Amino acid sequence: MIFPQIPEVYQQKREEAAARQYALTKPRGSMGYLEDLSIEIAGMTGMIAPELKNRSVFLMAADHGIAREGVSPYPSEVTAQMVMNFLNNGAAVNVLSRQAVSGVCIVDIGVNYDFPDLPGLVRRKISHGTANMLREPAMTREQAEAALQVGMDVLNEAADHGLQMAAIGEMGIGNTTAASAITAVLCGKAVREVTGRGTGLDDAGLEKKVGIIEEVLRNRAPDPADPMDVLCKVGGLEIAGMAGVAIAAAARRIPLVMDGLISTSAAALADALVPGVRNYLIAGHRSPEIGHRYLLEKLGKYPLLQLNMRVGEGTGAVLAFHLIDASLNILRDMATFETAGISDKE
Amino acid sequence: MIFPQIPEVYQQKREEAAARQYALTKPRGSMGYLEDLSIEIAGMTGMIAPELKNRSVFLMAADHGIAREGVSPYPSEVTAQMVMNFLNNGAAVNVLSRQAVSGVCIVDIGVNYDFPDLPGLVRRKISHGTANMLREPAMTREQAEAALQVGMDVLNEAADHGLQMAAIGEMGIGNTTAASAITAVLCGKAVREVTGRGTGLDDAGLEKKVGIIEEVLRNRAPDPADPMDVLCKVGGLEIAGMAGVAIAAAARRIPLVMDGLISTSAAALADALVPGVRNYLIAGHRSPEIGHRYLLEKLGKYPLLQLNMRVGEGTGAVLAFHLIDASLNILRDMATFETAGISDKE
Repeated sequence: MIFPQIPEVYQQKREEAAARQYALTKPRGSMGYLEDLSIEIAGMTGMIAPELKNRSVFLMAADHGIAREGVSPYPSEVTAQMVMNFLNNGAAVNVLSRQAVSGVCIVDIGVNYDFPDLPGLVRRKISHGTANMLREPAMTREQAEAALQVGMDVLNEAADHGLQMAAIGEMGIGNTTAASAITAVLCGKAVREVTGRGTGLDDAGLEKKVGIIEEVLRNRAPDPADPMDVLCKVGGLEIAGMAGVAIAAAARRIPLVMDGLISTSAAALADALVPGVRNYLIAGHRSPEIGHRYLLEKLGKYPLLQLNMRVGEGTGAVLAFHLIDASLNILRDMATFETAGISDKE
Repeated sequence: MIFPQIPEVYQQKREEAAARQYALTKPRGSMGYLEDLSIEIAGMTGMIAPELKNRSVFLMAADHGIAREGVSPYPSEVTAQMVMNFLNNGAAVNVLSRQAVSGVCIVDIGVNYDFPDLPGLVRRKISHGTANMLREPAMTREQAEAALQVGMDVLNEAADHGLQMAAIGEMGIGNTTAASAITAVLCGKAVREVTGRGTGLDDAGLEKKVGIIEEVLRNRAPDPADPMDVLCKVGGLEIAGMAGVAIAAAARRIPLVMDGLISTSAAALADALVPGVRNYLIAGHRSPEIGHRYLLEKLGKYPLLQLNMRVGEGTGAVLAFHLIDASLNILRDMATFETAGISDKE
């Protein structure tokens, strides 16, 4: 599979943004991570404080064969039911997207349900969910590549229509199991260190999930040095789709905001597949899923929010849009020491 | 001085809000602190998911006699210069308030400069700054009470015009010194544990600041059991003003968002003066000033943001308005499992 080239960030624009930050009427560095963010976005986009008004969350939905092992307290049918909820604007991500004036692009990339043609639904189903990775690889290489291509396609189409900022989110019962497996492999951690309660497992459920992921990794033996191997063996269709979105966004210099464990596992795979993707990533929210911090550390990202949210769907990413706006508004609209006639540090 | 009564929160409304949160199409508790926040606001206001559109940050400015000891890298003149910047919409708090559709109420409660009558400036100067608390009490009892009254007055006037949510912020060169002294006394901590770099002291500057605050506390000996004594001896006019805002907001069931160390020291004094104020407080942002965490712990508050911001002015509080909106939008606008026809947990 041929991936696009990821451009270098604009170093000169980063320096211009940093110089302007220092001239604004506030102590140097006093806007903290919002200052850093405005500088990073200058490097990504080549623009000082652009208004990133054309924005969308790419919401990929797919089912997981591993759900048959009872790794989630919710039945698989909920994946399709939640897709209907997204289409009807009833889910958390819809509410937060309306507040953040963001589009929501809902993609059926592998739900185990045959949707009719519905307004707002992008029908790009690769299969009716992944295979049960306890017994066989989750996806064939062809399926994984097709799912990556779907992600690149939807991002590229939106970019052709003026997209300026993107978020990734997901729905897929069982997908924290896949994401924890990916995290264990990519970060070189024990399964127990990276596996959480997902949508709400109790202690026994968590023990069972850890045991299943350990068995999956023994059975599948994904090669940590080969991200495509990891994706095929223990990934998911929506994870591949989100990785594709991240790759295409980076190729087009579009800042991409990650959500929780699952979307970040996709972004980390994208960066492993195509080095440089990380330069266009922003961490929206740190999930209470314990593996998330290792992925963020690996990517070198500080999360803008830490609100103990664990709903997925891109909610933490979309919520972070307000903070990204703030970082750019500050850089664009504040007075400078010079124009305001204010004494700088003695 | 007679303070207003603080009403009990509406327990029944908290329970109604919690029940509705559990019915929404997301795993229980999965919106994390935003769920808790929507429940707390129901208890404060007696309303399920109100739209808190009429909002304002109360920005109190005053000078500090202690600044003459060189506790800040900026000269005292910057307090007045920044007030002009606020009036001209050039400061960080102006930019963030515009984004959050919030009013900005700028109060000269003790700046060492005689402003003319200017549009947008509330002129309620008590004195031209506090006395140097190294040599004498920062304020007389009469001054502190007058400053508390100013805070109550401005909040009450806004409340009479429909105010639904408030934030507090400040400007005053030298005021992290006063706030650290208050924090040491109220939290029973050593000065070194609660004193930070303010707007950017170097190591030597920090050492000097710690030494000065230690000497202030030895010289003034404020009584930890008497919050008015603490306020008079080591406080500030803008700190008293913000405390007054917090007291009046709680008395009128208006959620009040705190900013960093200084505004939280004011809110903690308000709660010590009038028990129950804390039930109407929300922590917007945790400052990198090391004493802030102790005040938040004392008040039992989790900060919505942790962005390493240290600009003051109410910036962290106003930025948190977006998250408060999100918590209320979620509770108001999401579908329920029943209406959306989604299977709940097995």
